[in-house]
Amino acid sequence: MPKPVIKDLTIDNITENVHSINSQADDARLKYVMERLVTHMHDFARETRLSTDEWMAGIEFLTAVGKKCTDVRQEFILLSDTLGLSLLVDSIDHPKPPASTEGTVLGPYHTHDAQDQTIGTGISADPDGTPLLCLCTVKSTSGQPISDVKIDIWETDSKGSYDVQYEDYNGDKPDGRAVIRSDADGVFWFKAIVPVPYQIPDDGPVGEMLEKLGRHPWRPSHMHFMFEKEGFDHLITALYLRGDPYESSDAVFGVKESLVVDLGTVTPEQAKQYGVKEGAKLLEYDFVLVTDDETRKLRDERALEAMKRLGREHMAIKGGLLVPDVD
Amino acid sequence: MPKPVIKDLTIDNITENVHSINSQADDARLKYVMERLVTHMHDFARETRLSTDEWMAGIEFLTAVGKKCTDVRQEFILLSDTLGLSLLVDSIDHPKPPASTEGTVLGPYHTHDAQDQTIGTGISADPDGTPLLCLCTVKSTSGQPISDVKIDIWETDSKGSYDVQYEDYNGDKPDGRAVIRSDADGVFWFKAIVPVPYQIPDDGPVGEMLEKLGRHPWRPSHMHFMFEKEGFDHLITALYLRGDPYESSDAVFGVKESLVVDLGTVTPEQAKQYGVKEGAKLLEYDFVLVTDDETRKLRDERALEAMKRLGREHMAIKGGLLVPDVD
Repeated sequence: MPKPVIKDLTIDNITENVHSINSQADDARLKYVMERLVTHMHDFARETRLSTDEWMAGIEFLTAVGKKCTDVRQEFILLSDTLGLSLLVDSIDHPKPPASTEGTVLGPYHTHDAQDQTIGTGISADPDGTPLLCLCTVKSTSGQPISDVKIDIWETDSKGSYDVQYEDYNGDKPDGRAVIRSDADGVFWFKAIVPVPYQIPDDGPVGEMLEKLGRHPWRPSHMHFMFEKEGFDHLITALYLRGDPYESSDAVFGVKESLVVDLGTVTPEQAKQYGVKEGAKLLEYDFVLVTDDETRKLRDERALEAMKRLGREHMAIKGGLLVPDVD
Repeated sequence: MPKPVIKDLTIDNITENVHSINSQADDARLKYVMERLVTHMHDFARETRLSTDEWMAGIEFLTAVGKKCTDVRQEFILLSDTLGLSLLVDSIDHPKPPASTEGTVLGPYHTHDAQDQTIGTGISADPDGTPLLCLCTVKSTSGQPISDVKIDIWETDSKGSYDVQYEDYNGDKPDGRAVIRSDADGVFWFKAIVPVPYQIPDDGPVGEMLEKLGRHPWRPSHMHFMFEKEGFDHLITALYLRGDPYESSDAVFGVKESLVVDLGTVTPEQAKQYGVKEGAKLLEYDFVLVTDDETRKLRDERALEAMKRLGREHMAIKGGLLVPDVD
């Protein structure tokens, strides 16, 4: 293939020339992703007539975001979350058929520090939290219980902070986290504390951005859940408390009506059965997982439908990813 | 203004909801830039049906780019340069009427360490460089010499490295750099070395990206110039050597035909006049600056023309920047 001649580039011809030199890549997916990325980046500059000062402010912002990242703080994920990209990508990658549990943002606070615990564990050591009994099941879309699902649960303490946000955190004593497994009936239960609203970390460049945009940094009260089981699509979700002041203005766009729950009250029988205080708060939820096969089929179908709606013909799915169909 | 209700967001409605919450900002320009940014970012994800793994690879890439930045290395500028964004923004912000000197990429190696020197200075202390006498003028578009222009010049040494790229560089002894001023006739001259091709730093994430794209990291031989004079548009440009192996494949898209020069040979008279060896290499160039007023007028006109072509009606220029015209 003759090398493209890259010279005398202007506002109007630079994009095709960048595509031309990038099209030397071997990987069809990489080429397609780069072609779309460069087109959108250039169109953004052209449509805003971006100034050099604004471009430099952008460079400095992204550099500051990168510098803010540590092992326990991912400011780029926070940026993606606060601009709605994380929720969008999750929706694309994990389509849900009706009657399955919807997904939501992972957020930047999942860790791999949580220990395997047995059903019935208490995940929070915070004495100031309001005790919460969580009684849950996990089933397939056909209503069959799914046993031995690995369930990763995490929440903040009663002050609205995750364990990793404390300066003296070193991974040895995870708190507000557990990994448990569903039993033969698809049941899992544990003791936690009632989630509270909290602010996403706003002492960095993302916080400054939110302030400039007149946005608050609050997330409504929620508890995170991640489900893994061979043959089923990885489910990242969270449950939200109805009536939370931030229920309809989540800083990271995660709230879905189907994930909003009303807390109940532990009955005397339940108190006895689960070893908690009578009258304590109760969270009950039945999660529904989708099989890998069903997810894959749905994802591929929706991708091709979306391309048709966008007028992008001649696209194919290769290895689960959209590429131009050059055959 | 009632707060927007942000809940139950999907692939198809998230973008308008992010716009809705961001529209609480006071600054009209910020709102417009964010609206375009979020639209393009979301469209990029929708058009590629971006997977979670790819999204995470993007997060990790951007984080690595941020971590690579230091006081003397700006990996985000390098990324912008290699994706053609820098050249595009320069073209938008610094439109050039016919017969003026075209601009090009600043690159990541400009510093403020160069000392003020008098005309005739030698900017390179590299004994291995091929001596080059540079005889230049700087004029207005009407052909009038411009005196006392601050001219910032920088080039690599004969190995293709800028001073700041050496580990022991501390800013005390800048090399391959000078700031000089044009005389009453708009003349400035100095001694330098013949520029050589060099690789942009490819030991970081941007280098990995270029490799994956099958692209080389070379820039053709060039010398950077930056011109500052009150009343004239800041000119960032560079001169390139004709016949360079990378003349038509510059890794950062900077080469323009009008900036490509043929080196000549110093005559006996010139050798005597400028105190250099007879037969040494000679670079001659007449730079033409555009006034601030002319630039502003041209920039505004072209911005509004571009909006018309894009079918974006009801746009206005406020403070030199494009905003929706809400009047």
